[in-house]
Amino acid sequence: MIGRAAQLGADLVVLPELVTSGYVFTDADEARSHAESATGPTVSLFAELSAEHQIMIIGGWCERADADRLYNSAAVLDRGELLANYRKTHLWGREKLIFTPGDEAPPVINTRLGSIGVLVCYDLEFPELVGEVARRGAQLIVAPSNWPAGVPVPAGERPAEVIKAQAAAAVNRIAIAVADRCGLERDVPWIGGSLICGTDGYLLAGPAAGEPALLWADVDLAAAQDKGLGPHNDAFADRRPELYR
Amino acid sequence: MIGRAAQLGADLVVLPELVTSGYVFTDADEARSHAESATGPTVSLFAELSAEHQIMIIGGWCERADADRLYNSAAVLDRGELLANYRKTHLWGREKLIFTPGDEAPPVINTRLGSIGVLVCYDLEFPELVGEVARRGAQLIVAPSNWPAGVPVPAGERPAEVIKAQAAAAVNRIAIAVADRCGLERDVPWIGGSLICGTDGYLLAGPAAGEPALLWADVDLAAAQDKGLGPHNDAFADRRPELYR
Repeated sequence: MIGRAAQLGADLVVLPELVTSGYVFTDADEARSHAESATGPTVSLFAELSAEHQIMIIGGWCERADADRLYNSAAVLDRGELLANYRKTHLWGREKLIFTPGDEAPPVINTRLGSIGVLVCYDLEFPELVGEVARRGAQLIVAPSNWPAGVPVPAGERPAEVIKAQAAAAVNRIAIAVADRCGLERDVPWIGGSLICGTDGYLLAGPAAGEPALLWADVDLAAAQDKGLGPHNDAFADRRPELYR
Repeated sequence: MIGRAAQLGADLVVLPELVTSGYVFTDADEARSHAESATGPTVSLFAELSAEHQIMIIGGWCERADADRLYNSAAVLDRGELLANYRKTHLWGREKLIFTPGDEAPPVINTRLGSIGVLVCYDLEFPELVGEVARRGAQLIVAPSNWPAGVPVPAGERPAEVIKAQAAAAVNRIAIAVADRCGLERDVPWIGGSLICGTDGYLLAGPAAGEPALLWADVDLAAAQDKGLGPHNDAFADRRPELYR
């Protein structure tokens, strides 16, 4: 899939959360048996493929920091080099029984493609976090995700997760790319709602329809530099933080 | 329209922003000529109708505070009594040339129907503000609005304003009701996207299709008391404000 994306001209490939390990662990012991260090096979494979195709890859992996601590992490690689690793700070569901939450704010990385912020899945549902990353300059936020299909989605509607991602892009005038898991893993059905959203909040690609998919889009990162909303408004300058106690 | 809503069993009627004055003022002088005090005809009419029908009414009006200051306000009336008045804090477009921005956070009012927060239009696009109001206990946020039709909406998509409202409801597990202006006023086309959204972020009514409309829905305000997201998560308790610098 990464090779095919590169052939199509992709500069950046985003992969789901915990992409090589799977997500639905029985317990922490099972997760530990799939966990790796940053020199383990998953990040090494990301490095190798990003070097081979001269692209960036951002993907989720199961990180073992030491005997006790596992993190739900996302690695950022560019042409073979590990630029950053982010440890998910907002854990979902049984992740709380397995992973340690990261204690550092998400990275905003100045890359050759532009300024990229990295979140993981549920993180994206905290508008204050997304806003903070956007105000640190992220033009694009990338979120490896595993969106479980939870609350039934009314007929003809998009899953709320998709709507939240679109709104997060629009209010911050940034692009957002989510790579989601699809299908069924053990007893968990996944939304499979991968998407690429532009700075107006409208989708450039996706949402994927629950099937394995390669989405691609040209994303105008320069547009994310402009927070202006007509002649009198600016999405950032119009904030009144003194009122957001 | 208010009488018809009451006949249908409405407990609360929401009206658009600046509903009686119109919105597209040539300048501050023209706005001033339409501005009123809280004892003026608009709020008096809201009071009278809310008493007559034994309902709540929340609607936008053009407030004259003194010779210099005009506010873009929303009044909250219940059965003839003025419970609160909110002065819009985030001004849009040429409003900045006409109105003084309010300096007080939006009210959260304990009413006989439940706890209701009041924003006006563009306020709703600041997730930190919506979150703050929700965390002060609002089960329902009401937003008299005038959404100008700006950025073209891609075919088959909902306007980004609607998506932002849905996401604001979903991330905070609150209901949101927006009454929007429709049609054309002077040179300004309005979205006419009124909506009522439930705590999951899915619409209970609307978006209106750009025509005059009376939307109604039963809104489960008790659902907004529960911020739980399955056995391990809580939309409020999972926040990590120390990371939202």
